[in-house]
Amino acid sequence: MADRPIKELNWKTPLEAARKPSLNQIAKMGICGIMDPIAPGIPSGSDTATLALLGYDALKVYSGRGALEAIGSGINVLPSDVAFRCNFATVNEDLVVLDRRAGRIANEDAAKLAESLQKIRLEKPSVEFVFKNTVQHRAALVIRGEKLSTAVSDSDPEKVGVKVLEIRPLDENSETKLTVKILNKLMDKFRKLLERHPVNKERSKRELLPANIILCRGAGTAPRIKPLSEVYGVNAACIAATSLIRGVCKVAGMKLIDVKGATGTPQTDFMAKAKAAIQTLKTNDFVVLHVKATDVASHDGDVKQKIELIEKIDRMFGYMLNNIDLNSTYLAVTADHTTSSITQNHEGDPVPLAITGPYVRRDDVEEFGERACAKGGLNRIRGMDLMPILMNLIGKTKKFGA
Amino acid sequence: MADRPIKELNWKTPLEAARKPSLNQIAKMGICGIMDPIAPGIPSGSDTATLALLGYDALKVYSGRGALEAIGSGINVLPSDVAFRCNFATVNEDLVVLDRRAGRIANEDAAKLAESLQKIRLEKPSVEFVFKNTVQHRAALVIRGEKLSTAVSDSDPEKVGVKVLEIRPLDENSETKLTVKILNKLMDKFRKLLERHPVNKERSKRELLPANIILCRGAGTAPRIKPLSEVYGVNAACIAATSLIRGVCKVAGMKLIDVKGATGTPQTDFMAKAKAAIQTLKTNDFVVLHVKATDVASHDGDVKQKIELIEKIDRMFGYMLNNIDLNSTYLAVTADHTTSSITQNHEGDPVPLAITGPYVRRDDVEEFGERACAKGGLNRIRGMDLMPILMNLIGKTKKFGA
Repeated sequence: MADRPIKELNWKTPLEAARKPSLNQIAKMGICGIMDPIAPGIPSGSDTATLALLGYDALKVYSGRGALEAIGSGINVLPSDVAFRCNFATVNEDLVVLDRRAGRIANEDAAKLAESLQKIRLEKPSVEFVFKNTVQHRAALVIRGEKLSTAVSDSDPEKVGVKVLEIRPLDENSETKLTVKILNKLMDKFRKLLERHPVNKERSKRELLPANIILCRGAGTAPRIKPLSEVYGVNAACIAATSLIRGVCKVAGMKLIDVKGATGTPQTDFMAKAKAAIQTLKTNDFVVLHVKATDVASHDGDVKQKIELIEKIDRMFGYMLNNIDLNSTYLAVTADHTTSSITQNHEGDPVPLAITGPYVRRDDVEEFGERACAKGGLNRIRGMDLMPILMNLIGKTKKFGA
Repeated sequence: MADRPIKELNWKTPLEAARKPSLNQIAKMGICGIMDPIAPGIPSGSDTATLALLGYDALKVYSGRGALEAIGSGINVLPSDVAFRCNFATVNEDLVVLDRRAGRIANEDAAKLAESLQKIRLEKPSVEFVFKNTVQHRAALVIRGEKLSTAVSDSDPEKVGVKVLEIRPLDENSETKLTVKILNKLMDKFRKLLERHPVNKERSKRELLPANIILCRGAGTAPRIKPLSEVYGVNAACIAATSLIRGVCKVAGMKLIDVKGATGTPQTDFMAKAKAAIQTLKTNDFVVLHVKATDVASHDGDVKQKIELIEKIDRMFGYMLNNIDLNSTYLAVTADHTTSSITQNHEGDPVPLAITGPYVRRDDVEEFGERACAKGGLNRIRGMDLMPILMNLIGKTKKFGA
């Protein structure tokens, strides 16, 4: 949701330019501030930032995106598994990347391709794997074995116009060499199957980009963290469609609530998520409602869409304000990172934060925006400070000292 | 540049009292804040603060001022060398310090004395050393050997009216005892040579204080840090006359740009430095322009001079504003520490900071001052946060996470 000033918006940010009466109402009733998800100037990933916003020290516990994505997609990741974040992508015959998202392939097409990929058998060297598509071009790959390593490079070059990378070992261990061999063979088999797959032939006919390669990155294992129930003694639940966020919430021991129509895309059903959150609050101490859509619009550089999405989010908060008893409930609104619609990347600028509820030290901020919140009573905090603040407001923190 | 409120200025600080249209313009166009070079309340040295402002964790990497001063003065400091920051000073016959800066001795006199000191030979115990004067009373001493220690006390009592200290061991190691023995012998030889040196006889005739002793402090080795080119992938250069700052920038892998007329004193050629900075920017991603003069005025308690110097710095920024394309360049202005013109010491109050350039979240601060900036959109950050913020603005930070 957070962004940098944009010339076309008369140097406002999309959030500042959007009509957002309910978000402003939360700012007005509450205490505001700005927050560095990890640290000032450091662009955070969605994974590290969400770990931080749930109160964990991401710099210490983060062990790669792959496992979080895989866990979130419903794969049961074992401690010895190595997991990757994958993209369905489009390359030309020289393996030069044309589109890292295969035209943001629809879930249905991706599911058919994933089903075929899962049927591949790798015999020499032999390995078990799980490949699962999640939302649009996103997917997760888990390779399973007792002697695998995460010290492997990515095949995803993370930009278009360059060749797909060969996966290389990042250390000299024999486990690493074996893992690299397995992965390069698997990537090759994936590529060959996708190239001649009927779904891609059909896509070409419809003038859609073929999803003719799998790019993988972020080799990792499942992070070892204490669940929120143990850290704060709370029942916690998560409403999110994005696998990565679901994965982080799951390793934090939160219940994952499935919501019909929640897709992790700009077409998601905001109101269905809001209704589910209200319902879930009845039996939980703490509920996270995550919206991915604004980040998608920023990565596409679509400022107009981003503003429209913020206005939809605002209406979602309007519904929640009408259905939450703020005499007994705290409501916080923030972002997990700034994404610039100009650079189309995550950036290190802080995000706005507002918290309302019965006993916050209400300040005089009247707008929910990057600059308005910077004048709020919370001043500037770190992402990992948010959870102790919220848990303290609902009486769930332990005193340090006596 | 930063200071505390002063009664004679109607409780304004020198920066607040100065006429500074260009600095105010930067604040107006940019985003402002206050910054604790190390941490709130901790007075920082120029060395630790500059390390922090370049993004290093000074609390972890700082290994004494001596080596930084020596490196900055052009001495090639080896890993096993022990280096000291030295002052030419004035003592009476009982070795009571009368002036720690020998009347801020001119560079020419100091150079002649240093040349003579370098000719001294120490035989028992035998040691090689390098002694070099830098700006005014400042100098560096490096002692060279395989079995030396930094665990030695200073000879500089850091105040007037008390006796010069004997250098003592700070641990029980034999290397330390040897180092102490060498240093006390060397200090004694220095003292004897200076006492009868023609330059000092000449100074007495001109009614100038004789530089009749060398005070040394801050035993240290060269810090081991990654260069900025490796941390952020930037070409970086430094325009500074002060050896200590040059030393810090050199260990950070920055090119040192020599500027004719840049002296590290209140008489420095501000405009020559500004012109050199503009020129250097053409071939570098990041240029540091450092001005020492305001700190000198503060240490002398000369409020009037400090204000005049701030106004000269303001004109220097005026030149830069006219010659930098702020559509494609970021400009930040700050101080490396607060120096109180009343206590004449570095103090732990935060310093003001303003950053302008195309995509900063411009705030409503209209003045570059300690208190005006405290209301800015950056709120309060630490010195080591500045570099990630700047590097993020120019697209040189790596995302943490995915």
